[in-house]
Amino acid sequence: MADPAEKKVEYYGGIEGGATHSKMVIMSSDGTIKALSRGPSTNHWLIGIDECLNRIHNMVVDAKLTAEIDLDIPLKSLGMSLSGGEQKEGQRKVIEGLKTTYPNISESYSMCTDTFGAIATACEAGGIVLISGTGSNCQLINPDGTVHGCGGWGHMLGDEGSAYWIAHKGVKTVYDANDNFEEPPFDISHVKKLMFDFFQVTEWYGMLDHLYSNFNKSRFADFCVRLAEGAKEQNDELCVWLFKEAGKHLGRHILALGPKIDKSLLKAEGGLQIVCVGSVWRSWDLLKEGFLEGLRPRNDKDIDIEEISLLDLKESPAVGAAVIGARDSGSQLNINYEKNVNVFFHHKF
Amino acid sequence: MADPAEKKVEYYGGIEGGATHSKMVIMSSDGTIKALSRGPSTNHWLIGIDECLNRIHNMVVDAKLTAEIDLDIPLKSLGMSLSGGEQKEGQRKVIEGLKTTYPNISESYSMCTDTFGAIATACEAGGIVLISGTGSNCQLINPDGTVHGCGGWGHMLGDEGSAYWIAHKGVKTVYDANDNFEEPPFDISHVKKLMFDFFQVTEWYGMLDHLYSNFNKSRFADFCVRLAEGAKEQNDELCVWLFKEAGKHLGRHILALGPKIDKSLLKAEGGLQIVCVGSVWRSWDLLKEGFLEGLRPRNDKDIDIEEISLLDLKESPAVGAAVIGARDSGSQLNINYEKNVNVFFHHKF
Repeated sequence: MADPAEKKVEYYGGIEGGATHSKMVIMSSDGTIKALSRGPSTNHWLIGIDECLNRIHNMVVDAKLTAEIDLDIPLKSLGMSLSGGEQKEGQRKVIEGLKTTYPNISESYSMCTDTFGAIATACEAGGIVLISGTGSNCQLINPDGTVHGCGGWGHMLGDEGSAYWIAHKGVKTVYDANDNFEEPPFDISHVKKLMFDFFQVTEWYGMLDHLYSNFNKSRFADFCVRLAEGAKEQNDELCVWLFKEAGKHLGRHILALGPKIDKSLLKAEGGLQIVCVGSVWRSWDLLKEGFLEGLRPRNDKDIDIEEISLLDLKESPAVGAAVIGARDSGSQLNINYEKNVNVFFHHKF
Repeated sequence: MADPAEKKVEYYGGIEGGATHSKMVIMSSDGTIKALSRGPSTNHWLIGIDECLNRIHNMVVDAKLTAEIDLDIPLKSLGMSLSGGEQKEGQRKVIEGLKTTYPNISESYSMCTDTFGAIATACEAGGIVLISGTGSNCQLINPDGTVHGCGGWGHMLGDEGSAYWIAHKGVKTVYDANDNFEEPPFDISHVKKLMFDFFQVTEWYGMLDHLYSNFNKSRFADFCVRLAEGAKEQNDELCVWLFKEAGKHLGRHILALGPKIDKSLLKAEGGLQIVCVGSVWRSWDLLKEGFLEGLRPRNDKDIDIEEISLLDLKESPAVGAAVIGARDSGSQLNINYEKNVNVFFHHKF
C-alpha cells in the first residue's frame, strides 16, 4: 500500500520579473508546468516595495487558481528572479514583506536578480546571460558557482544596448543635432518625425513631460519599437546606426566579463553559449554587425573569444526561477535543459 | 503742491529660480533693491506646480515683510526667471495658479526661463548667458530680440558641463571601470573613495537608492563639490579630467550658437561677452583649458570666435527678472548695468 504522503504533489513557484512585464509558473517536481500567470513590472526600484509585494501576490493567486491549488496551501518554494533584485537589502525587504503580508504564499522564498532565472532555465551548471529588454544586464555564473556581472545599473547609470537606451539615444541624437551641439552621424529627419509622432508632442519642450513629470521607463523604451521599424521598413540610416551601436554595447558586456569566464564555458561545443533574453533580441539582424564588433578585444587585457553560440529560451525564465527556489529549499526539479533553448546564431572568429 | 499719486512708491518683484536655490528681490523704479528673500528650488519639473506656487508665495511674503509692504498690497509686477520655466504651458499653469491661489501677490506676472533674468541683469540689449549650476543651459538674445538656445533640457537629456553632469560622469566612470566596461582615462581609486564616502554607501548596489528611489538631483549634484576638492587639493587626475571635460562641453554650447550670434555682439569691446552664472564657475581654473578647447571650430559650419570676455554677476539674476517683469507690465527700472557685472576672464584666440 502506498504511503499517502508519497502521493502528495508538491508545487514550486517561479517568477521572472522585468521592468515592464512579469511572468509566473507553478511546477511540479517532475518539471511539468502546472500553471502560468502574468503581471506588470516587479522591479521594486521602479514601483516601490509595497506595490512589488502586491503584484507578486496577485500573480501567485492567479497561478494557484489556474493550477486548482487551494489559496491557503503554501507552495513548497517560490523563486523570484526579478529585475532590480540584486541587492541583499531589497531581497530581505521583499521576502520579509511577503511573509508578513501574505503568509500563505509559500513555505520558503528565494530572491535574485533577473539574470539568474534565465541562466537556470538554460543551463544546469553555470553560463552567461545577456538581457536586453526595457533595460540591460549581463551575468556570468561559472561552473564553480562564482558570479560576475557587467551592467544592470538601470537607466540612470547604464542599460547600454537596451530598448530604453536605444530610445534615449535616438531622442538625444535629435536634440543635440537640433541644438547644433553634436553633429549627428546621419540625417535626423525620420527619427525626429517618429519621435514627435510617438510621444505626441508638437514642440521641443513637450518631451520634458515624458522625461520628468510623467516619466515611465517602460513607456519611453517602447519608442525603440518605432526605431526598429524605421530601420527595417524604411531602412533609415540613423535607425540602423542606433541598433548597430546597441549591438556594439551589448557585445562589450561579454567582452568585459571575458577574463572572468571559465575556460570550460569558452571551449564548450559551439563555443561560448550566451543566453539572450529580452525583446531587443528580436532585432538581432540589426544588432549583429555591431555585436560582433563589440566582441573584438580592445586591449591586451581582453581575451580572444573564438567561438560563440547565441541561445534564446523556449521556456520562460520563470522556470529557472522555480528551479532556484526549489534548490534553495533543498528540492530538485527534473528539467530537460536542452529542450528549453534554441541556438539562433553561431559564429567562429 | 505735489500730486500724492506721484509720491506713491511702486514695487517690482523679481525671482531667480534654480534647480537648488531661488532668490527674490523687491525693487523700486529707481533700481534700488528694497528687500531680498531666499527659497529652495522653484523648478516645477522637479517639484510639481503646486509646490512651485507655494514656494513662490513664501518668498514674496518674506520679501514684502522685509520691505515693510502690506501683504494685501500687490506688487506692480513680478518677473519670474525660473529654471524649467521655458515652456508656454508651464508658464500659464504657474501664472494662473498664482492668480487663483494667491491673488494679492502682484498686479501682473511674467515668467521665463532662468537664462533671461541673468542676461537682463548684465545687458540692456541682448547678450549670451551660460549657466552651469546644478544643471546647465545657454541662451542667446540678439539685439533685435531674437532668442536662440542650446541645452537646458535637464539631466535626462543634457545638462552637459553642470554640477549634476560632473557628479554623474564621475560616478559613471567609476562604475564602468569597475565593470571593465569602459577603460577610465585615469585611475579611479580616489573618485571611488570620494563616492563611497559622500553617498555613504558600502557596496555597489547602494548607489541605486541615490539614483532611483531617493533621487534628488540637487543632492546628487553636490558630489561635484567633492570632485572639485579632489582636483584642487589632491590634484587627482580623474577629478581634473572631469572638470576639463565639463569645460569643453560648456564651451561647445557657445560654439553651437555661434552661427546665430549677431555680429555686434561678437565685435563688442572685449569680444563676445558671456555672462557666466552658477556655482560650477567657481572652479573656472579647472574648466578653463577645456572651455577654450570647446570653443574651437569643429567643422566649416562653425564660426571663429576671435575674442571673449567672461562676466560674472555682482547682482542676483533676480534683478534681471524684476526688470523683465516691469518691462512686460509697461514700466522701466533704472539699472546701471555696468555695476552689475565683473569681467573675470578675457581671451583673444
